[in-house]
Amino acid sequence: MKARIGIIGTGWVGTSVAFSTLLAGHARELWLYDQRTAVAEGEALDMTDGAAFYPRCAVSAVPLAQMREADIVVLAAGRNGRPDESRLDLLRDNARIAAGMGRALAGFGGIVIVVTNPVDVLTRVVAAAAGLPPERVIGTGTLLDTARLRERLALHLNVSPNSVHAQVVGEHGDSSVVLWSGASVGGVALRDWPGWPADEEPTVAGHVRRAAYDVIQRKGATNHAIGLVATELIGAIVNDERRILPVSRVQDGACGIRGVALSLPALVGAGGAVQVLEPAMDAAERAALAASAAVLERAFATLAG
Amino acid sequence: MKARIGIIGTGWVGTSVAFSTLLAGHARELWLYDQRTAVAEGEALDMTDGAAFYPRCAVSAVPLAQMREADIVVLAAGRNGRPDESRLDLLRDNARIAAGMGRALAGFGGIVIVVTNPVDVLTRVVAAAAGLPPERVIGTGTLLDTARLRERLALHLNVSPNSVHAQVVGEHGDSSVVLWSGASVGGVALRDWPGWPADEEPTVAGHVRRAAYDVIQRKGATNHAIGLVATELIGAIVNDERRILPVSRVQDGACGIRGVALSLPALVGAGGAVQVLEPAMDAAERAALAASAAVLERAFATLAG
Amino acid sequence: MKARIGIIGTGWVGTSVAFSTLLAGHARELWLYDQRTAVAEGEALDMTDGAAFYPRCAVSAVPLAQMREADIVVLAAGRNGRPDESRLDLLRDNARIAAGMGRALAGFGGIVIVVTNPVDVLTRVVAAAAGLPPERVIGTGTLLDTARLRERLALHLNVSPNSVHAQVVGEHGDSSVVLWSGASVGGVALRDWPGWPADEEPTVAGHVRRAAYDVIQRKGATNHAIGLVATELIGAIVNDERRILPVSRVQDGACGIRGVALSLPALVGAGGAVQVLEPAMDAAERAALAASAAVLERAFATLAG
Amino acid sequence: MKARIGIIGTGWVGTSVAFSTLLAGHARELWLYDQRTAVAEGEALDMTDGAAFYPRCAVSAVPLAQMREADIVVLAAGRNGRPDESRLDLLRDNARIAAGMGRALAGFGGIVIVVTNPVDVLTRVVAAAAGLPPERVIGTGTLLDTARLRERLALHLNVSPNSVHAQVVGEHGDSSVVLWSGASVGGVALRDWPGWPADEEPTVAGHVRRAAYDVIQRKGATNHAIGLVATELIGAIVNDERRILPVSRVQDGACGIRGVALSLPALVGAGGAVQVLEPAMDAAERAALAASAAVLERAFATLAG
Ligand SMILES: NC(=O)c1ccc[n+]([C@@H]2O[C@H](COP(=O)([O-])OP(=O)(O)OC[C@H]3O[C@@H](n4cnc5c(N)ncnc54)[C@H](O)[C@@H]3O)[C@@H](O)[C@H]2O)c1
Ligand SMILES: NC(=O)c1ccc[n+]([C@@H]2O[C@H](COP(=O)([O-])OP(=O)(O)OC[C@H]3O[C@@H](n4cnc5c(N)ncnc54)[C@H](O)[C@@H]3O)[C@@H](O)[C@H]2O)c1
Ligand SMILES: NC(=O)c1ccc[n+]([C@@H]2O[C@H](COP(=O)([O-])OP(=O)(O)OC[C@H]3O[C@@H](n4cnc5c(N)ncnc54)[C@H](O)[C@@H]3O)[C@@H](O)[C@H]2O)c1
Ligand SMILES: NC(=O)c1ccc[n+]([C@@H]2O[C@H](COP(=O)([O-])OP(=O)(O)OC[C@H]3O[C@@H](n4cnc5c(N)ncnc54)[C@H](O)[C@@H]3O)[C@@H](O)[C@H]2O)c1
Repeated sequence: MKARIGIIGTGWVGTSVAFSTLLAGHARELWLYDQRTAVAEGEALDMTDGAAFYPRCAVSAVPLAQMREADIVVLAAGRNGRPDESRLDLLRDNARIAAGMGRALAGFGGIVIVVTNPVDVLTRVVAAAAGLPPERVIGTGTLLDTARLRERLALHLNVSPNSVHAQVVGEHGDSSVVLWSGASVGGVALRDWPGWPADEEPTVAGHVRRAAYDVIQRKGATNHAIGLVATELIGAIVNDERRILPVSRVQDGACGIRGVALSLPALVGAGGAVQVLEPAMDAAERAALAASAAVLERAFATLAG
Repeated sequence: MKARIGIIGTGWVGTSVAFSTLLAGHARELWLYDQRTAVAEGEALDMTDGAAFYPRCAVSAVPLAQMREADIVVLAAGRNGRPDESRLDLLRDNARIAAGMGRALAGFGGIVIVVTNPVDVLTRVVAAAAGLPPERVIGTGTLLDTARLRERLALHLNVSPNSVHAQVVGEHGDSSVVLWSGASVGGVALRDWPGWPADEEPTVAGHVRRAAYDVIQRKGATNHAIGLVATELIGAIVNDERRILPVSRVQDGACGIRGVALSLPALVGAGGAVQVLEPAMDAAERAALAASAAVLERAFATLAG
Repeated sequence: MKARIGIIGTGWVGTSVAFSTLLAGHARELWLYDQRTAVAEGEALDMTDGAAFYPRCAVSAVPLAQMREADIVVLAAGRNGRPDESRLDLLRDNARIAAGMGRALAGFGGIVIVVTNPVDVLTRVVAAAAGLPPERVIGTGTLLDTARLRERLALHLNVSPNSVHAQVVGEHGDSSVVLWSGASVGGVALRDWPGWPADEEPTVAGHVRRAAYDVIQRKGATNHAIGLVATELIGAIVNDERRILPVSRVQDGACGIRGVALSLPALVGAGGAVQVLEPAMDAAERAALAASAAVLERAFATLAG
Repeated sequence: MKARIGIIGTGWVGTSVAFSTLLAGHARELWLYDQRTAVAEGEALDMTDGAAFYPRCAVSAVPLAQMREADIVVLAAGRNGRPDESRLDLLRDNARIAAGMGRALAGFGGIVIVVTNPVDVLTRVVAAAAGLPPERVIGTGTLLDTARLRERLALHLNVSPNSVHAQVVGEHGDSSVVLWSGASVGGVALRDWPGWPADEEPTVAGHVRRAAYDVIQRKGATNHAIGLVATELIGAIVNDERRILPVSRVQDGACGIRGVALSLPALVGAGGAVQVLEPAMDAAERAALAASAAVLERAFATLAG
């Protein structure tokens, strides 16, 4: 069932989510909102001009209030960090925006996808402010990190990324956790792959963690990959695919984590991230996941202060 | 046959052409070049991060010289007009860039697609500087205007844009010519369509002509629609589709026009815009086309001055 | 909005419609029924085995009664003619089946697509038996003939079939009418196309009319093209595309025809073939269309006898 | 790079491979051959009639000798077993055909995909008769069984088949081996999946093994799923995807098997099944694979007798 999909924030990221969603044919109606009203309007006009080249979908700029009528709302409003400020300043500002959006979506009947950073803390903020159940407020979380990891492993091993099965869990950020122990390639454990240099795992993990910085440093933002990733998530919901994807949501006990929002593999379908799974982890990974949860708990706590 | 496709200029437009081409699966290798080297690199990294979500294609930033090895090169480098300058200043600056790129492509064996504005004059500039035959230097021309026209008519008549057959020819710009006399909707002449208000045709033509301004005024650039349009053109070449599309090329006699580059319907396949067709036109349309050719001839002449 | 789509009759044709629909991603649920229950079951199992390779859709064999719950029902049950029988015998037999299905669909809330031959007479039979409004009982009619015509013209002119605009109207059968006078190629009237041999038009029309016989003589049935054609029609309905397609329905006055079902260009969207258009025709075409309507009127009358 | 793809044998299976390949857009030219020349011609005509609905590709019936010019040749000629004959009779007959085709392809520069049953023995027969290196003669092998297994597990667990990672190796037939020990669902080992009934594994394996019989009993043949599976394999080759897929080829030492053709996960790209991988197996699986190899060795040996 094609959906009415709303995008809040039509900067680099929101626009890319909108465009990829359009081409994927997931939307019957695509609604754009930004505080810079003219920009949202301009994006809608520009996309509409290309209507002959994507599956039928009406694109328009709408007032914020209309988002409540959508089936899926993507939150991409907010800003990137500035060199001269602390991470905390960014968190405070974006959390304020996210909380406002959450309140505006109180009683919303659909699914919220949070993209704005820090995505895990904001997923929790939105869920709380909107009063929505945890499965219906999903952060893109480590889905992007996982795509990057699979691509890098694919290049390294010279195989298709489709044949690489590996996941990143925890925070989308510095404390993210690559689940090396369970990674496999075409049915072969990665660590059994002929010539796999296990001692380089920290280096690869570092590259994945630094990928956003590498792109932002060069072009000022990241948008294409996150747009495609969010579109994949939207597709899983719209088509009720029940795919298992590492996404962020407020956890309620899986892997011993409760209350914090972070990424674990979850079954995603029409009802959202309805079931969280406990992936196999070795002791180090388990400890790293707990540490990541603690980082996120502390960050959230600063908001209350 | 999937192609090696090069994009020169990775600003708003070049990046959108690159991304849409990637999703359409036309490229086996996608090469990006910009004088802002870091931006081209950043775009390549960002797109590569999403590799799991589009058909296999290697994306990379390359030096300008490598473009000569491509099958298709898209020229999207240059700048948009500034409010405080004459149209001529823009023409001079972009023509200088285009001529340089043309010289760099002398002896090139593939197809050049020109997008930079003013697209018609620059198509002629590139063809001359590169010494390539007219069918192998194609400007996107009125393909974008045609898409916009069909979309607007579709909205007006409440039918699919796929059922609207109407073309814009001549300059991509103020002197463009809508071929109302030959427009049809699902096999019915537009002017026979129940309730079609023929007296509003100038208004609709005006909207189409002003569409870019409407978008630029709101978001500062246009990119999505032109990206999709260029991708359609690339697809027609890569798959040797022999589709008839209104595109710009140096004309050699069709409709009495010779030497000037402007858009007329042309058969586009692996060899480029290999055959130009003479669409049915009434007297007014014929005169308007001649006037458009004269405008373009004068603009080109100013470059010599 | 993806649909629940039912197929009645899983022989050559029904199975091809099912499979193409599956790959196109139009169906959320695909229901198969045939009096040969085991065949419908086998097809459903076989398609389900390939589920990893098409967009999510549940395929199953169902009882006839369940078809009433579908959004679209395709009628492909019946048989092909035998060499040793009169055309009338076939008509009688298939009309009996179609009437039965029509009665089974009385009060149906969706759209019926009739494919079984003779498709025009049966479209009328089904509409009458089901008591459905004319726009909701659509025969594939000359949509297939039109596809064949465009393909043959495309080969003849060495251009893409996408650039050929030409239609066949009237009966899907011996009295079909090619609208040569309005045919165009990339905006150029076909009869103005350099080198178009207008004296060969009857030959081309004959080839199109004989196309089914040519295929049946070689492989015993036709299925791929009709499967793709029906899928296109389904897509126009499911996505409410409002495309204009030459399809059969009981006419209520367009081109002076009333009561008979035959093909004219019609606007097809979620509500069915909701608006019939009157294409430009020269005198000969107009006469041929009237003759075609008379043929179909007589055929229908024999059923009453 | 789109390819010239040849299909030998246009019965149920060959035709489905052809049609799915056409829709997937992998072929630039599609060549059909069958000893029933008229059938191959009829299929080509029927597919060509639908050309407006799939990516540009020329379909034609060709003489056998032309297959040597193809990039990929699919061997689907031969027959299904008859109730009244021994399995050996079928093997003898189809092996004779396969050997003939192999000899006809001596010195062939492309890739052969074998589908005719018994697929593993015939893969070996073709490789020997054609004198081609093992990586360039690929049997679809357990790729179909693997698709069936994933689909059944997906239904059982109510998750997307895309999230199920499990493989069948060994013979495509009664001695096939499901690698339960390495199966996983979204990163969770299947045997750790909440509620997975490990004692039902033999039942599920039996269903997968019997799937072809279940379909054939109902509709007389299987074609849709094998058509899609072969198309996936073709795509991996055409686009040089380097995907890891369980396919059959003459083994040269992986898992201790040499000389016999059977399925193991292999890296498939433009050069064929270029690298065979050794999946993790427990002792029972290892023994079952050895037994499967022995079955195939004996079957091949009977041909010499
Ligand atoms: N989760 C991820 O993986 C991921 C990846 C990339 C970017 N991001 C994050 O996405 C966010 C957006 O990034 P961007 O590059 O698009 O930034 P941007 O500055 O280009 O766009 C942000 C947009 O939000 C709008 N906005 C700000 N406050 C608003 C408000 N109160 N109401 C409505 N609109 C408002 C702005 O007008 C602007 O258009 C950032 O927080 C960034 O860090 C997340
Ligand atoms: N033909 C059309 O229908 C159409 C539609 C939209 C835009 N355009 C035109 O496309 C052009 C690009 O627009 P944009 O919005 O992408 O502008 P932009 O400023 O975003 O990007 C232009 C890019 O060109 C690069 N560049 C400039 N000079 C260069 C040189 N000498 N070598 C290499 N790179 C160079 C710049 O670094 C920049 O990245 C403009 O001329 C615009 O008018 C044409
Ligand atoms: N309109 C077109 O353009 C077009 C094109 C091709 C074929 N056709 C027509 O489509 C029809 C089907 O052709 P086919 O090649 O698939 O034939 P087929 O014999 O292969 O299949 C017909 C199926 O209908 C089933 N059937 C017959 N009576 C039934 C009943 N009362 N209830 C349920 N199922 C019943 C049969 O069991 C069989 O499976 C024919 O009438 C043919 O002429 C139309
Ligand atoms: N590997 C798999 O997973 C798999 C799956 C399904 C079917 N199959 C096998 O595929 C084969 C074909 O099955 P089908 O259902 O299409 O059978 P079919 O009888 O419908 O078609 C076989 C075709 O081969 C042709 N043929 C026979 N001998 C030939 C020769 N010497 N030269 C040229 N053409 C010849 C026949 O004319 C016929 O058109 C069978 O062996 C079947 O068991 C394999």
